[in-house]
Amino acid sequence: MKLLIVGANGTIGKAVVEEMKDTAEIIQASRSNSTIQVDITSTASIQHMFEEVGEIDALVCTAGAAHFGTVEELTPELNRIAVESKLLGQVNLVLLGLPYIRDKGSITLITGILMDDPIVKGASSAMANGGVRAFVTSSAIELPRGIRINSVSPNMLEESKEKYGPFFEGYEPVPAQRVALAFRKSILGAQTGQSYTAY
Amino acid sequence: MKLLIVGANGTIGKAVVEEMKDTAEIIQASRSNSTIQVDITSTASIQHMFEEVGEIDALVCTAGAAHFGTVEELTPELNRIAVESKLLGQVNLVLLGLPYIRDKGSITLITGILMDDPIVKGASSAMANGGVRAFVTSSAIELPRGIRINSVSPNMLEESKEKYGPFFEGYEPVPAQRVALAFRKSILGAQTGQSYTAY
Repeated sequence: MKLLIVGANGTIGKAVVEEMKDTAEIIQASRSNSTIQVDITSTASIQHMFEEVGEIDALVCTAGAAHFGTVEELTPELNRIAVESKLLGQVNLVLLGLPYIRDKGSITLITGILMDDPIVKGASSAMANGGVRAFVTSSAIELPRGIRINSVSPNMLEESKEKYGPFFEGYEPVPAQRVALAFRKSILGAQTGQSYTAY
Repeated sequence: MKLLIVGANGTIGKAVVEEMKDTAEIIQASRSNSTIQVDITSTASIQHMFEEVGEIDALVCTAGAAHFGTVEELTPELNRIAVESKLLGQVNLVLLGLPYIRDKGSITLITGILMDDPIVKGASSAMANGGVRAFVTSSAIELPRGIRINSVSPNMLEESKEKYGPFFEGYEPVPAQRVALAFRKSILGAQTGQSYTAY
């Protein structure tokens, strides 16, 4: 099976590559430092990536940016970062990638714990996560040709504890490898429309 | 109490006005045909509305558009309708309206059943609903000055059954008045961060 992973260079992306490398032929894409370069905030860049990669069996996204700031500090402009990247970046991967995904293939997107268990300064990220989860739930009932779609919602990562720990006081960090297992379940399982949590 | 309702001219908006008219001084805003005209897809129009209206105790939104189409038909452009209107239109009402809301005031936004119980052609709307709900859950924990925020998720309305019934086969329609009660609960209650369902 041919697996395209967008965000291959991130902590979760690398763990998914490690988890799936014995099972799939993996094509790695990211903003930089990968075989394929892609900017998910640009539909032209996404389109170009799919033309370059061609047909795939599994599409995985572990990428998506958001601005972290209090609601009082958050401007419509700063909130657009999450909208254009984590939300629309991922939704557009689905909309533009669908013709390239083979029958019975799969799509797995990424959300995050903040939509369920919020932190101060996390509202913009939570918004994007909630939007992606609901898009996945809904699109799953009508994707053509047996294509499945799920999302994975990670807790704070053990690998990011030093950097983000102060924002996530009391959260139980999970190793990226546990998150990668949820991606494996989505890619190789038979369920669709699920939000797999690694909390 | 002074209540600003955006979308006052819609079926739910009218029901909220009816429900709250004996309790609050209501300022009605909508795209047209209301005292205040506002286009929620424009931050300048939202800003202008708040400057015109001044301080309020309660902000209610019952407005928000989305394109209905299958995932295969949905283009990034068509999906933007829901993003700019139902999602960002409402989030920007919060971000720009916050300084105009008095201490211990409230904000109530609108989502919809499709995020929980999807229909074919509803993925873009579901995405916007899920984004709004998660933004509300998250922002509730950090809004300043005792300001509360909730969302209301209606089922298909009895009043819209003739028009939308074929999309919602088997859904149990609810009268707009029941939805208005959920808005009343948000405006006059003490809870925050809730998603009230009228299913």
